[in-house]
Amino acid sequence: MADKFAQRMGTVHRSFIREILKVTADSEIISFAGGLPNPELFPVPAMGQAASEVFADIGASALQYSTTEGDAGLRRIIADRYRTVRGLEVDPDSILVTTGSQQILDIFAKVFLDKGDKVVIESPGYLGAIQAFSLFEPEFVTVSLENDGPNLEELEAAFKDGAKCFYAVPNFQNPSGVSYSLEKRKAVAALLDKYDVLFVEDDPYGELRFMGEDLPTVYSFCKKPGVLCGSFSKIAAPGFRIGWVVTEKEIYDKLVIAKQASDLHTSTVAQAIMRRYLESNDIESHVDLIRDRYGRQREVMVEMIRKYFPSEVVITEPEGGMFLWVTMPEGVSSMDLFDVAIKQKVAFVPGRPFYVDGSGENTLRLNFSNSDESRIEEGIKRLGKAIESFLD
Amino acid sequence: MADKFAQRMGTVHRSFIREILKVTADSEIISFAGGLPNPELFPVPAMGQAASEVFADIGASALQYSTTEGDAGLRRIIADRYRTVRGLEVDPDSILVTTGSQQILDIFAKVFLDKGDKVVIESPGYLGAIQAFSLFEPEFVTVSLENDGPNLEELEAAFKDGAKCFYAVPNFQNPSGVSYSLEKRKAVAALLDKYDVLFVEDDPYGELRFMGEDLPTVYSFCKKPGVLCGSFSKIAAPGFRIGWVVTEKEIYDKLVIAKQASDLHTSTVAQAIMRRYLESNDIESHVDLIRDRYGRQREVMVEMIRKYFPSEVVITEPEGGMFLWVTMPEGVSSMDLFDVAIKQKVAFVPGRPFYVDGSGENTLRLNFSNSDESRIEEGIKRLGKAIESFLD
Repeated sequence: MADKFAQRMGTVHRSFIREILKVTADSEIISFAGGLPNPELFPVPAMGQAASEVFADIGASALQYSTTEGDAGLRRIIADRYRTVRGLEVDPDSILVTTGSQQILDIFAKVFLDKGDKVVIESPGYLGAIQAFSLFEPEFVTVSLENDGPNLEELEAAFKDGAKCFYAVPNFQNPSGVSYSLEKRKAVAALLDKYDVLFVEDDPYGELRFMGEDLPTVYSFCKKPGVLCGSFSKIAAPGFRIGWVVTEKEIYDKLVIAKQASDLHTSTVAQAIMRRYLESNDIESHVDLIRDRYGRQREVMVEMIRKYFPSEVVITEPEGGMFLWVTMPEGVSSMDLFDVAIKQKVAFVPGRPFYVDGSGENTLRLNFSNSDESRIEEGIKRLGKAIESFLD
Repeated sequence: MADKFAQRMGTVHRSFIREILKVTADSEIISFAGGLPNPELFPVPAMGQAASEVFADIGASALQYSTTEGDAGLRRIIADRYRTVRGLEVDPDSILVTTGSQQILDIFAKVFLDKGDKVVIESPGYLGAIQAFSLFEPEFVTVSLENDGPNLEELEAAFKDGAKCFYAVPNFQNPSGVSYSLEKRKAVAALLDKYDVLFVEDDPYGELRFMGEDLPTVYSFCKKPGVLCGSFSKIAAPGFRIGWVVTEKEIYDKLVIAKQASDLHTSTVAQAIMRRYLESNDIESHVDLIRDRYGRQREVMVEMIRKYFPSEVVITEPEGGMFLWVTMPEGVSSMDLFDVAIKQKVAFVPGRPFYVDGSGENTLRLNFSNSDESRIEEGIKRLGKAIESFLD
């Protein structure tokens, strides 16, 4: 069989994170490994009500095949929210509904990536994007992520060298929690325009800001076409698998063709329930609730890290999102730490998989969205102890 | 922008059928063009009840991220139904839930197709497969479909010539309505084994048999590995976008990797509602209902064709499924006929798009699942008149 697999499969592996999640299924383990939203915050009764109404009112059409572009009403709501919440004017017809925002990466790659094309990514970078793009055999070029965004010299050098596109998560990045400053957003947009590089702005966490001021998307500063990706996974619920992409007509038409070939269209039922939920509920106050809770959890995590981690350990202090990033002294391996930590019943994701160049040995990712405050305290205490054992 | 698109996009076009469906949106037009199940038969109240129960009982977990492989309970039900309904022993762990069966074609292509690989398809062939595979730039090799299955000489010649895989719909094929005879099923399986060609058996219509005897899948006769594709779209409802693929371990693991990169997993909500619906309802009697209704509609269509079509016109007489195939005398163009028919307020799909070699000029596809008996009578009458105008 092995000789029958396509060449592209040689470079792609099962997600390391998903493998880790299996180890951490033990309920005694306090896990900061996953990237799950807190299920206590899912608006279950309101969603259930929306589902009942959908089946009662438009059951047959919610169960039928539908258009590849996505539910027109849902796209209008997405456009309205861009205007009211983000101050961005978006035409509903420029929005394509996708099966989660993961699918955008797949169809973008289908439309744009030839084998060997240079894809610039942040380092550390989002694993789902690395996976999706890898199947199209690009050459990854990495750009260091600093506390306020990418290193601009590295970025310009990568663009100058003939990059096809730049994939980035400018708000509360997964895995690092880093956000781009306003200056870097403008600078990145200027470089994209100057070198005519396609931009893929992935923004699943943009609305989850606990502190500081909302900043415009990089997309809104670009004069050349790009794609802006959004998702209901972090502000409503991921189980629907509903994301969307905003782009201009020429790209849009190609993305529709690629999506149609991939799964015809996103679940009609899921779209109908989500639309009804949004029409009948105040999602803005729901997002406030999430922001408030995650903000407190993040605060406790940072506080406990200060209390229990050795002072040599450096962390990012994200203003939103779901993750923070830990850098230990050189020479401490987070892979080795993982084994020790699991014995002490605490888990995280070692940083190396987020670096396509195999660096990041001494880094790790912590998720703060999916643990309550007391478990965060206890888990960070255990982890601090584990780290200490490496510094002795 | 055009110079940025990947090479593969040069060969792929928006589905011709979807374009036609836009023309036929006019409610006065009797359309035999679409491929939609009859929405009157969707079990709306039972699905609504299932949805209510899911939100009441397991709301938060139905809204969370889930495994790429799919809901374990749903996979057990699919395996049980293979045993009880089709007499096929299938391990639930060999079933991967997909976002419609269209997605199987995409992930199969990702896992197996290098550019230029030879993909054997039936002629006429299923448009969705041609679209999905095209993105991976194979060389299509077509094999004529006869009334009882593929032409075996052509098939063997194609296999001998180094085919990578054979994609086929042995039960009530879309577009032709043709089913393979038992003899041809065995002969095809023997050829697949002899030449070590991967088989993709697409079986969305297998349970929709109105007459004749159920026949085993070709897959069940094969000794070498292949994939068997199934779907809830035609026996329950397509709006969920839930399909599945059955295969052996080595292929399964690669398909999981490709699916994970494509959309992480299929909608948790949609899977949970479908599972609950199947647990609480007798889907077998629901499928009986569909079979009964489609069987009558097919009967009326065949009868009316005999009454209203010129006698030179030849049709397939499918024993199940949703489509039948019309062959007009040489020289009559179904593309030209389409324009005349639309003026007389009746629509169909011209046959040419189903032939990758551009033949099939004088053929067309008729759908009988989505029109009631009186509209079928009226529509066939109109179409007969339109065809006659070409034979004068």
